[in-house]
Amino acid sequence: MLNFNHEDIMKMSKIFRLNLINSLTGYKSANLIATKTDEKINNVAIFSSVTHLGSKPPLIGFITRPTTVPRNTYENILNHKYFTLNQITKTQIKSAHKTSAKFPKKISEFDKTDLDYEFKNNFQAPFVKNSPIQVGCKFLNKYVIKENGTILIVGEIKLVLIKDELLLEDGMLQLDKGNIVSINGLDGYALPKLIKRFLYARPD
Amino acid sequence: MLNFNHEDIMKMSKIFRLNLINSLTGYKSANLIATKTDEKINNVAIFSSVTHLGSKPPLIGFITRPTTVPRNTYENILNHKYFTLNQITKTQIKSAHKTSAKFPKKISEFDKTDLDYEFKNNFQAPFVKNSPIQVGCKFLNKYVIKENGTILIVGEIKLVLIKDELLLEDGMLQLDKGNIVSINGLDGYALPKLIKRFLYARPD
Repeated sequence: MLNFNHEDIMKMSKIFRLNLINSLTGYKSANLIATKTDEKINNVAIFSSVTHLGSKPPLIGFITRPTTVPRNTYENILNHKYFTLNQITKTQIKSAHKTSAKFPKKISEFDKTDLDYEFKNNFQAPFVKNSPIQVGCKFLNKYVIKENGTILIVGEIKLVLIKDELLLEDGMLQLDKGNIVSINGLDGYALPKLIKRFLYARPD
Repeated sequence: MLNFNHEDIMKMSKIFRLNLINSLTGYKSANLIATKTDEKINNVAIFSSVTHLGSKPPLIGFITRPTTVPRNTYENILNHKYFTLNQITKTQIKSAHKTSAKFPKKISEFDKTDLDYEFKNNFQAPFVKNSPIQVGCKFLNKYVIKENGTILIVGEIKLVLIKDELLLEDGMLQLDKGNIVSINGLDGYALPKLIKRFLYARPD
């Protein structure tokens, strides 16, 4: 096997290190986070760090860096408290990836990509149209990770909208029924297929 | 589309809610985290919350709940500081899932599953044999998420071991070349295939 120690990693060229370190934790979730600005401009940006934090109450978290690309998302969430998570399908990956570009704050990514927004169910933030899982969240808290200045945003799930065929009898959403993608590294998009579900594991 | 509001979610049966809330953030990374106890018993447990935090320095984070299943992992990391992340292949999913069972602390999951451990490169924690990406980490910090009592563990990457054929020229690890899986919900294992990589996105 190839091996790299901490010193090797620190000495790598920036791009090589970014690609390597971003891919070694495995497949990542692909979420479009949509918000609105004070000027009612609808903003959307791709995040690969959205994580389940708990089910009761239903909580999610994601990592952001206020000084880099998704800073509009961060500011909008702090100002307006509401945001949405939208799963990305195979046909949306080109537009979804383009939202990672540094658009000026006054430009809506919805105007610069094939993505469309929709407001519904009286929710206070826009959803991404045609996303098979749309989740409305309210900002609860933020935690500064002092080791590198990133921020964990914690949100509570207030509304869940699901394409009917994804929901199984026991509550699971079978993601491959919606052609939902996952992310490999910084810029790779992968399409998973469910292999198997297992029973709740017990010692014997 | 089906819709559930916050009240609907809080009223759901426990299993239905667990399945739903665990699947709506999308595909999750599948990592076996291996540690050792004071009695030198090697412990391994599956985690679906490992997330990239930064590349320089190379940092990862994951969520744990000290009062539930992976508490052995949590205690071992606090006591010994070192742990490993190991990507899971298609052939390992049955054993990997079994590590989520509540084994007593004195029982090694390596004895109760088909998984084997290996020590190498003088690293202070065990790796999972035949994992195509093995990452040695050192504990740096923990953050209590007061909204639900979960804990974000932050670790620094000290050593990376990779099966040769996964590493691309620009540093990306192409996960599907190792048949690495991702997780759907609580108990679903999916096999992704890379569709496409995109260039670094710019506004136009």
